[in-house]
Amino acid sequence: MRTNEHIVKRYDEELAELKKEILAMGGIVEKMIADAMRALIDGNGDLARSVIQYDREVNRKELSVDSMAVNILAKRQPVARDLRLLTMAMKVNTDLERIGDTAVNISERSLELLEEPPLKPYVDLPRMSALTQTMVKQALDSFVEGNVKLAQTVIASDDEIDALYQQIFRELLTHMMGDAKTITRAIRLLFIAKYLERIADHATNIAEMVTYLIEGEDVRHLDSR
Amino acid sequence: MRTNEHIVKRYDEELAELKKEILAMGGIVEKMIADAMRALIDGNGDLARSVIQYDREVNRKELSVDSMAVNILAKRQPVARDLRLLTMAMKVNTDLERIGDTAVNISERSLELLEEPPLKPYVDLPRMSALTQTMVKQALDSFVEGNVKLAQTVIASDDEIDALYQQIFRELLTHMMGDAKTITRAIRLLFIAKYLERIADHATNIAEMVTYLIEGEDVRHLDSR
Repeated sequence: MRTNEHIVKRYDEELAELKKEILAMGGIVEKMIADAMRALIDGNGDLARSVIQYDREVNRKELSVDSMAVNILAKRQPVARDLRLLTMAMKVNTDLERIGDTAVNISERSLELLEEPPLKPYVDLPRMSALTQTMVKQALDSFVEGNVKLAQTVIASDDEIDALYQQIFRELLTHMMGDAKTITRAIRLLFIAKYLERIADHATNIAEMVTYLIEGEDVRHLDSR
Repeated sequence: MRTNEHIVKRYDEELAELKKEILAMGGIVEKMIADAMRALIDGNGDLARSVIQYDREVNRKELSVDSMAVNILAKRQPVARDLRLLTMAMKVNTDLERIGDTAVNISERSLELLEEPPLKPYVDLPRMSALTQTMVKQALDSFVEGNVKLAQTVIASDDEIDALYQQIFRELLTHMMGDAKTITRAIRLLFIAKYLERIADHATNIAEMVTYLIEGEDVRHLDSR
């Protein structure tokens, strides 16, 4: 009995450790998004380059989280919901690593943009970025806490992201139409908006997995509607 | 002894079945990419809409592949390389589903483009699309066969994709600069090039996972360079 308790306790500790690592990785990629956008707005090339450097750390963390999950699977051989939780942890891990990649893309475009005078005061992009970061944070919290309601909030935010993206698209189009000299810069900004949209998609994917994990078959059915 | 053999045989059959399902899903998303590009080039709206319809089928397959993998994990409780193979199968599965999503995005842009006169004869986009489809196919084959050399071919193709993308980018930029009326169409085409690049990224991700799966720690170290 005491041995069983001990095993369960160790297992819980391992899961807690895994979740902690995923949250730590989430913290890094959230900072990468924030720094990449800050670099763009402040015209800070060093900050943009630091985001690109962070990518290594995220890659290392991805491997370490995968490795932890695989070790727990191998040692504990969990079934049912714990098994799904662990396989999902690995998928969340992949989403986080790709969010990091996308923050690197934002920094690359920002560095290109720094070589030319700024196109316009950035208003909607920071708003889109702030919402995107919130979605990533909420998606991870919903995973760690098993909080379906929070996951639903993330999924609902995706419409707002679409609206912001459309608004940015229209504004940039107006610039390009009005002055051909702005085209290259406007396209880079448009790509940054697309990257933010993609990050929001990753957060939405995580939130959908959380909903599926918690609610099981019913949502799964809806998902393949 | 006979029982063990029976169990091993059943397990091998289950793995083979899982790989078959992943290849089938791969076949669908390859067709989706091909059809989405054909729809663009031929101006075939019905074909574009059929790609969007296929998304359901891919979503269903994703759930079914995940479910198969989780069932094998639960029943067989594999360790070491088999465990990594199964966890990787689930990641490949996610990449395939997102390739399907991206083919849908191509179709959406194609439908928008059909509402206006074609911008230019499409030469580089079909080349980029053909290479992308080859990469997806090779990446899946490398996974199913455990073929590292083929995986390396996929990874090497990514440079060619980048070069094609840059060429398309420059050409479209020239169009936009020369005639502001082409801007909206050129941007949609640019997005299609970006989508193809993203699909190639997914194929590269799969190929990198295959390399890691087969070669283990060494590649993992390189990966976090």
